[in-house]
Amino acid sequence: MNESTLSKKEVICNWPFSDSSLSIKANAIREILKVSARPGIINFAGGLPAAELFPETHLKEATEKVFQKHGPKALQYSLTLGIVELRELLSERISTADNKYEPDSIQITTGSQQGLDMIGRAFINPGDYILTEAPTYLGALSAFNFYDARYCTVPLDEGGMRVDLAEDLIKKYKPKVIYVVPNFQNPSGITMSASRREILVELASRYQIPIVDDNPYGELRYSGDPVPSLKALGGDAVISLGTFSKIISPGVRTGWIAACPKVIRMMEKVKQSVDLHSATFPQYMIYEYMLAGHLEKHLEIICKAYHKRRDVMLNTMANEFPAEVTFTRPEGGLFLWVTLPKSIGAADIFDKAIDAGVAFVPGKPFFPHEDNDQHFRLNFCHASEDNIMEGIRRLAKVLNSL
Amino acid sequence: MNESTLSKKEVICNWPFSDSSLSIKANAIREILKVSARPGIINFAGGLPAAELFPETHLKEATEKVFQKHGPKALQYSLTLGIVELRELLSERISTADNKYEPDSIQITTGSQQGLDMIGRAFINPGDYILTEAPTYLGALSAFNFYDARYCTVPLDEGGMRVDLAEDLIKKYKPKVIYVVPNFQNPSGITMSASRREILVELASRYQIPIVDDNPYGELRYSGDPVPSLKALGGDAVISLGTFSKIISPGVRTGWIAACPKVIRMMEKVKQSVDLHSATFPQYMIYEYMLAGHLEKHLEIICKAYHKRRDVMLNTMANEFPAEVTFTRPEGGLFLWVTLPKSIGAADIFDKAIDAGVAFVPGKPFFPHEDNDQHFRLNFCHASEDNIMEGIRRLAKVLNSL
Repeated sequence: MNESTLSKKEVICNWPFSDSSLSIKANAIREILKVSARPGIINFAGGLPAAELFPETHLKEATEKVFQKHGPKALQYSLTLGIVELRELLSERISTADNKYEPDSIQITTGSQQGLDMIGRAFINPGDYILTEAPTYLGALSAFNFYDARYCTVPLDEGGMRVDLAEDLIKKYKPKVIYVVPNFQNPSGITMSASRREILVELASRYQIPIVDDNPYGELRYSGDPVPSLKALGGDAVISLGTFSKIISPGVRTGWIAACPKVIRMMEKVKQSVDLHSATFPQYMIYEYMLAGHLEKHLEIICKAYHKRRDVMLNTMANEFPAEVTFTRPEGGLFLWVTLPKSIGAADIFDKAIDAGVAFVPGKPFFPHEDNDQHFRLNFCHASEDNIMEGIRRLAKVLNSL
Repeated sequence: MNESTLSKKEVICNWPFSDSSLSIKANAIREILKVSARPGIINFAGGLPAAELFPETHLKEATEKVFQKHGPKALQYSLTLGIVELRELLSERISTADNKYEPDSIQITTGSQQGLDMIGRAFINPGDYILTEAPTYLGALSAFNFYDARYCTVPLDEGGMRVDLAEDLIKKYKPKVIYVVPNFQNPSGITMSASRREILVELASRYQIPIVDDNPYGELRYSGDPVPSLKALGGDAVISLGTFSKIISPGVRTGWIAACPKVIRMMEKVKQSVDLHSATFPQYMIYEYMLAGHLEKHLEIICKAYHKRRDVMLNTMANEFPAEVTFTRPEGGLFLWVTLPKSIGAADIFDKAIDAGVAFVPGKPFFPHEDNDQHFRLNFCHASEDNIMEGIRRLAKVLNSL
């Protein structure tokens, strides 16, 4: 190598990044995960399921079966929609008497996050409005923001989205899509009531607006009565996102979009250009795991454990938190939502909490307009019961000192 | 469920897809793969490596080690850049004396296709030009087209991109990025000469245009002498895309972007919004496979087999094809490129070839402006030697009958 080539090592003075990429904000949760990984910190921040509950033994058995039964096929390129075997099992599993899914109504994705990005890509023109709950899942905002979405937001109460406020927004902003997390919502833990679901699908039908039903936690119910799915009420107006991340393992990154054929045809084209298809091998792992009949039993195990952890967290909070700090009591899922008195900002106490050895996610980035700093999100599934008690005590100390 | 909800089943009459998604053309190769999967067809179409050469036994051992050594960590969410263990091994492997990579100069992707989409996302504003070879990899066009890229194209000859024609195009179109497949190019099989690489990096430096070096086949050389990498000549102006798809397994969908820190920081933000991170489990599989030292020996095995297959295909073509049909003689990679006489269009003979029991990819979609139908691409690695001979004879029959 001569001098002139060596001198070229730092040639690009200003990298010509695109406008859209320059406007991406780092995902707040991923950034907080870096801080909360410090030793000694009890982590209520991320959306991580409990690693000690992963079905390692059965997944190992499933993996052996993948090599035995599928061999090279599990290591080769595969269909853009995802392997047929998994889509067959999955379509049976999510079908009901009134709503039949075919294997071709499913697009396998690299986790739900990719599903959200693909929804953004398939539907949003720059400046289009999306009707969302406020607060809503920040990963969805991160996905939709890239496509220059704008938001019209409906507040939540204990019955979920205040759908009585939705119609005026629909008339005013003509949203392209309605995005909701109806079950054990991220971040609030709130579940939308059956009557509000009926109103929402009626609005969707009347104004011809597809509903994106983001449902990673639907099978993690610990108390209360099941509510009909949006799909059961709204049929083909509903695009459902699901994932194995919270019920088997997030590291296999296997999620799905289930929708009517027209939407799935579009998703297939989108998926071709983004990564051809999701990893084949983990799809076969999940397939063999489900085929062996392990999933339903595993769901019982994790629901039982998460149920206890939720109760431990709620009880400790009730005992230790100052009375003016309130919180939701979710019937399932991973998260609960804390509301601070108006005088206190959640971002302000984040550093104090980290110093005290406990991490949460401040609520602001969950609001599409980032106009509310009065909340934070706690994951009640990830830590052990002992750590939940200790972590909540640490947090209570911070809150009581304000 | 009552009548009024049932009647909502087909509520969305016109799905409000985004303009960009409506303009996506189905990926020609993925569509052809469906046709060429019919029984009895000898398939030279896809970019599939030979499945019977996958290192199944060693990957099975690696998978057992993943469960033994990493357990829950391999099943949990992981870092957006990818698992540290793999990035450490990989950075050592791709570093040279003059070009050191750190683990943090690598972003793991879901195959190279995702790397291409992320490049598009990070650099292209609507209407921006990209300087490419013509023909060039159609998966890259599929990725970049979504971002409304335009193309200024430089023809190829046996020495690769005609870089003597590049400067005028750079002056006229001010391309944002230079995209090249310098080694055993897809689709042509041609390798860019060392002297042209020097000219290209000099142009990149002088006009401040990053080079994207898409290099999935670089380690698959069967004859001829190695050529210095663009990175070795161009240093930090070069963004390199690599993948384990062609050297270990495509089904694990594990590729990477290697670049200077500023670019990788941007890629990390992009990756957060598209899927948080690629699947953890396959990354650990690849890591344990490489750690056990299997990769170099496996490369010898597949290079030996692909070398023979290439020679069988070239020899059969030389014997059987009409003299007016010419073709490239690649020193490596997976593909060779056939040129038809001007009177014959490749798309026209595709159906005849399928009827004769052999599939290829017509060349038109590899041209950014789709202005040339005189070529087709053959994969010489996927079929057995016997099938290569038989498939080329079938194809020769079609060509001789025209």
